[in-house]
Amino acid sequence: MGVKLGLIGTGTVGGGCLDIINTHKQDFLHHYGIDLEVARVCSRNPEQAISHGYGDCFTSDFHDIINDPDIDIVIELIGGTTTAKDIVMGALAAGKQVVTANKALMATSGEEILDLADKMHCEVAFEASVGGGIPIIVPLKHSLISNEVSSILGIVNGTTNYILTLMAESGINYSDALALAQEKGFAEADPTADVDGLDAAAKIAILASIAFNTRITMDQVYHEGIRLILPTDLTAAQDMGYCVKLLALANRTDEGIDVRVHPTMVPLDHPLAAVNGVDNAIYVKGDAVGETMFYGEGAGAGPAASAVMGDVLETARRLQAGCQPFVGCTCTDTLPLVPMENLTTRYYIRFEVEDRSGVLAATANVFSNHDVSVYSVIQRGKNEGGTVDLVYITHTARERDIRKVLSDIRCLEGVLVDDSEPTVIRVQK
Amino acid sequence: MGVKLGLIGTGTVGGGCLDIINTHKQDFLHHYGIDLEVARVCSRNPEQAISHGYGDCFTSDFHDIINDPDIDIVIELIGGTTTAKDIVMGALAAGKQVVTANKALMATSGEEILDLADKMHCEVAFEASVGGGIPIIVPLKHSLISNEVSSILGIVNGTTNYILTLMAESGINYSDALALAQEKGFAEADPTADVDGLDAAAKIAILASIAFNTRITMDQVYHEGIRLILPTDLTAAQDMGYCVKLLALANRTDEGIDVRVHPTMVPLDHPLAAVNGVDNAIYVKGDAVGETMFYGEGAGAGPAASAVMGDVLETARRLQAGCQPFVGCTCTDTLPLVPMENLTTRYYIRFEVEDRSGVLAATANVFSNHDVSVYSVIQRGKNEGGTVDLVYITHTARERDIRKVLSDIRCLEGVLVDDSEPTVIRVQK
Repeated sequence: MGVKLGLIGTGTVGGGCLDIINTHKQDFLHHYGIDLEVARVCSRNPEQAISHGYGDCFTSDFHDIINDPDIDIVIELIGGTTTAKDIVMGALAAGKQVVTANKALMATSGEEILDLADKMHCEVAFEASVGGGIPIIVPLKHSLISNEVSSILGIVNGTTNYILTLMAESGINYSDALALAQEKGFAEADPTADVDGLDAAAKIAILASIAFNTRITMDQVYHEGIRLILPTDLTAAQDMGYCVKLLALANRTDEGIDVRVHPTMVPLDHPLAAVNGVDNAIYVKGDAVGETMFYGEGAGAGPAASAVMGDVLETARRLQAGCQPFVGCTCTDTLPLVPMENLTTRYYIRFEVEDRSGVLAATANVFSNHDVSVYSVIQRGKNEGGTVDLVYITHTARERDIRKVLSDIRCLEGVLVDDSEPTVIRVQK
Repeated sequence: MGVKLGLIGTGTVGGGCLDIINTHKQDFLHHYGIDLEVARVCSRNPEQAISHGYGDCFTSDFHDIINDPDIDIVIELIGGTTTAKDIVMGALAAGKQVVTANKALMATSGEEILDLADKMHCEVAFEASVGGGIPIIVPLKHSLISNEVSSILGIVNGTTNYILTLMAESGINYSDALALAQEKGFAEADPTADVDGLDAAAKIAILASIAFNTRITMDQVYHEGIRLILPTDLTAAQDMGYCVKLLALANRTDEGIDVRVHPTMVPLDHPLAAVNGVDNAIYVKGDAVGETMFYGEGAGAGPAASAVMGDVLETARRLQAGCQPFVGCTCTDTLPLVPMENLTTRYYIRFEVEDRSGVLAATANVFSNHDVSVYSVIQRGKNEGGTVDLVYITHTARERDIRKVLSDIRCLEGVLVDDSEPTVIRVQK
């Protein structure tokens, strides 16, 4: 008698899962003794279920799945934090195992969900919520647990990595790169969640919660996106031996957990610097393992479905063995978060000024006034209208002092800023 | 009551494990509820046990561990295939779980060991046998099992990767690079197992067995080492957009499993091309996940101990939950191996010739005589004594035809080869 699955959501990822099951069901039984049976498929779109051969067990009401006593594992693939939460909580309350790819849900309601799972002796697996097909949650929850993790740096959003790679390679600006990404299906019509760093914030909240054994939700993650990055920033970075990536970072510090998402200058010899296009990679540093990195395709039907089905197979294997889950919520600690203004790092700051004497000195004075030590300042290019860009690189400074610097620079005569400038890129060691 | 460990072997890796336990024992209990207790430590060197604080439970006889009914998990870290095998088989026969870092043992006696483990309802975990601290066996046995894996390419030997990196970066020859590697502790006094590809052969045998569900032993793996590589090969490769790595490869083909270890030209834009120095990386391609790569430090006390202790903690967690292992041997198939002479790939072939007319034509005729199509031929540099190097790159050719080419070229007048030349480097697509 097989392990009975109820799959909810038949879009890209759900369709990918059904494809895998249709192709490899016999292999799973033959190689691993895992006997999967798709008992019910729920979707708003019956055609999608029918086209995969599951018209017979189709339902448009997820309650038919969570209330079906025969179903062992509920696979939630509709996304979002409303109905998806009802599904996940409802399935757990009914004593079912849950597999989900839902980063937003896990990064906002993870505690509540995992608490209910623990109470019900059920498991919630969510490998696909971060990094598409890249195994990262399983390694963090299993293989690497003998380590105290000190740092996680992730390129976890394919859309922004594609846009930044394109801008760096071809010199086109953000809007044109975004349009190309949209054309190729690498960016949504409304790209906000990706380009403003919200998607990455959810993912690093999940990874940091696991790695540091402390609950971090996505609304606690400071995030900046990539809209303000100009091609000149990428060229300037390259000249200094860096590339610019939208990094999701989480560091264990003496003051607490430092977790944030923002464009970051990454040294060209760092393993993450070679991660281009829509690829994702997560770099993890632990006290025993040292530096390690997990790389792969961060999106798409196949990769995400690979991760979902890995979780499904593992859960099914455990159920067949008659075992209760032995890994639940591991957020045993309550570590403080480092406020963003307390961050200390090096900064790249670029803004446009009139090309006349006195302006450079005035801007340099601002840094000095706030005790921010300047490593280098370069005057780059000649813009339309006879202006130039000033690019400052600081020594290690406090975020709060940098904010004062930015605020003062905005008010200086001869400095030409719109609402958003100066552009700030934090520099990774 | 804790899970009782018997650790055998207190060298680099064993010492690293005891360090991790000493540092993080309370963390394991607090974060994961895993209660480890080192019950016995066995070594030829009591000082090593004493220096880690385990003088009280020291024994020099491993039978004290495998015959101790209280011990739950035996950790075998002495290496080799003789006493180590007695330990592993003895521990399993006594119903104990086994964790080992022993690649040679698993790559030669894996079947026998895993059969006994299955029979005894015990588990043998061996994450540390490949790739040091990099989680790769756990991902292959768990996260990625929804995939049909088509290809594994690994840089799995840090010694040779260090030597090749050094040769490429500094232009020094193999012997000097080896001496430097030995000086830094990155190569053994007798480097044979590393530089001749035996170590890598054991590792790819293990990975291929798991990924393709078919038993492959290390003696079945064709292997060539790096002793014949000259700095000029690395320069020539670079000029053509490649780097040279000692790759361990395993491919699923229509003819069977193609598994081998040899110096390989890797395109510079391949993720493996950026893996330098003693680092390791394993690239895996699956039908759902696409391309993925696992990167990290391939050797050293910390990384290897991280992997061993990951296995120990996972096994302990399962024992505490009262679960029997639900993943045993997965070699359910018996796939044929592709004989090396049937390999089809592109080839780099370099040899020294007298710099006079007729020689180039004579060598070109040899390729033509054996129906090997030449992509390019370059005459490189002027050697001492007025000779030059000819560097041929072929289109896709059969290994058996290439061997005929090499044999004929060795006999040509004007071709200056010692026993080993021409140098052959297979080209990765």
